[in-house]
Amino acid sequence: MQRYKLLIAYNGASFAGWQIQPNALSIQEAIEKALATLLKTPTRIHGSGRTDSGVHAKNQVAHFDYDGAIDLFRTQRSLNGILPYEIRILALEKAPQNFHARFDAKGKIYHYHLHLDPVLDPFKKPFSCHIKTPFDRALFEQAARHFIGKKDFYSFTNESTLLGGKRSSIRTIKRLDIIDEPGGLRLEFEGDGFLYKMVRNIVGTLLDVAAGKTPPDAIPQIMAARDRRAAGAAAAPQALFLMKVLYR
Amino acid sequence: MQRYKLLIAYNGASFAGWQIQPNALSIQEAIEKALATLLKTPTRIHGSGRTDSGVHAKNQVAHFDYDGAIDLFRTQRSLNGILPYEIRILALEKAPQNFHARFDAKGKIYHYHLHLDPVLDPFKKPFSCHIKTPFDRALFEQAARHFIGKKDFYSFTNESTLLGGKRSSIRTIKRLDIIDEPGGLRLEFEGDGFLYKMVRNIVGTLLDVAAGKTPPDAIPQIMAARDRRAAGAAAAPQALFLMKVLYR
Repeated sequence: MQRYKLLIAYNGASFAGWQIQPNALSIQEAIEKALATLLKTPTRIHGSGRTDSGVHAKNQVAHFDYDGAIDLFRTQRSLNGILPYEIRILALEKAPQNFHARFDAKGKIYHYHLHLDPVLDPFKKPFSCHIKTPFDRALFEQAARHFIGKKDFYSFTNESTLLGGKRSSIRTIKRLDIIDEPGGLRLEFEGDGFLYKMVRNIVGTLLDVAAGKTPPDAIPQIMAARDRRAAGAAAAPQALFLMKVLYR
Repeated sequence: MQRYKLLIAYNGASFAGWQIQPNALSIQEAIEKALATLLKTPTRIHGSGRTDSGVHAKNQVAHFDYDGAIDLFRTQRSLNGILPYEIRILALEKAPQNFHARFDAKGKIYHYHLHLDPVLDPFKKPFSCHIKTPFDRALFEQAARHFIGKKDFYSFTNESTLLGGKRSSIRTIKRLDIIDEPGGLRLEFEGDGFLYKMVRNIVGTLLDVAAGKTPPDAIPQIMAARDRRAAGAAAAPQALFLMKVLYR
């Protein structure tokens, strides 16, 4: 058996997220089907983590095992020939036998794009969240600072496996940078890991603050509540990009 | 009668170009229908020039006349409410009675995006031309220089009105800048005017040069031939953006 590593970009608009599920085409399923066609054997791929329906990736990482030789260059090209253009294999390489796309990931970088112009830019629409509510940047920045560091993000996840206490909801956000870009702002999240819907739930809560609905210094209380209902609604998926998976 | 000026952005992918034509939805028609609905009278708009099917605009300009008062802010918002999101009215303002979107235009800026990465970026696909043929940048740049200045572009247009000699095919390209951008190059064309399909025919010819099919110093002969068949095929429309219409 040889382990292989895939670097993958996808436009999430047409897919039901990364993870395989019944009655909807997921990115994982599309890639597994293409690999099975090429390698002539059912092939399971393991991603660094799932992305939600509608969320994009510039550099998702996955691994798979195959018992035999692969011409890396030709297989990459053939995969891209079979896959819909919304999914592209950016790289295919051999990996050490003990490499694991999920367990070895030491962190992730996500970007979230807020589009703040009064008139919607048609070129930004599929890749940003257009804010039509009031947006007080000073309040937004003040609230954002509360998310940096090692915190309990229980109130900011929809992850059902946490309910039984089986997994920890403690994560560390190393940086949450707010960067001007044409037509709005880019939020750069870097952390050791992100719970299900955590980035979108944080952004939705920050938007409530920017709109004057939630005071910025209520964030610590929302965290302490450990109650999903205390935080804001999830912000739109199409503005979220998985930019990089970090390994040692 | 009061004359009004529109500043318009559109994603050309879903439309049959700017100009009204039978059996296909044009951008002009979509805006005229929206104006007629709002102003309750048939309204003709005059663009700075047509853009071809699939070509985008960041800042197209048009004018129209209306006999009555318009609440500019509310009308702009209502137009954007009626129009499909791929067309956005960026500004609506009063114009002098003698302003003409086409005749007063002193120049235009177009951008053309070449995507040169071996693997297609799914986010660039709808807005660039992916080059899979060889691309020699030095040859490309050498050939591009031949297009700068006051030249006869007869070989580089599909404009049938020129055939009878009714319009001149002389145009001045003030600059043709070749600028690196992530994943490829951006070609910036600034000129006093562009004939039908002129930018795309120039780019197609330059791509033939970059691929080694046409020597760079054949460009002056291709121009001198005054024969559309001497130049290359039109490059793909979705990579072309009308960026700005220049007025005094």
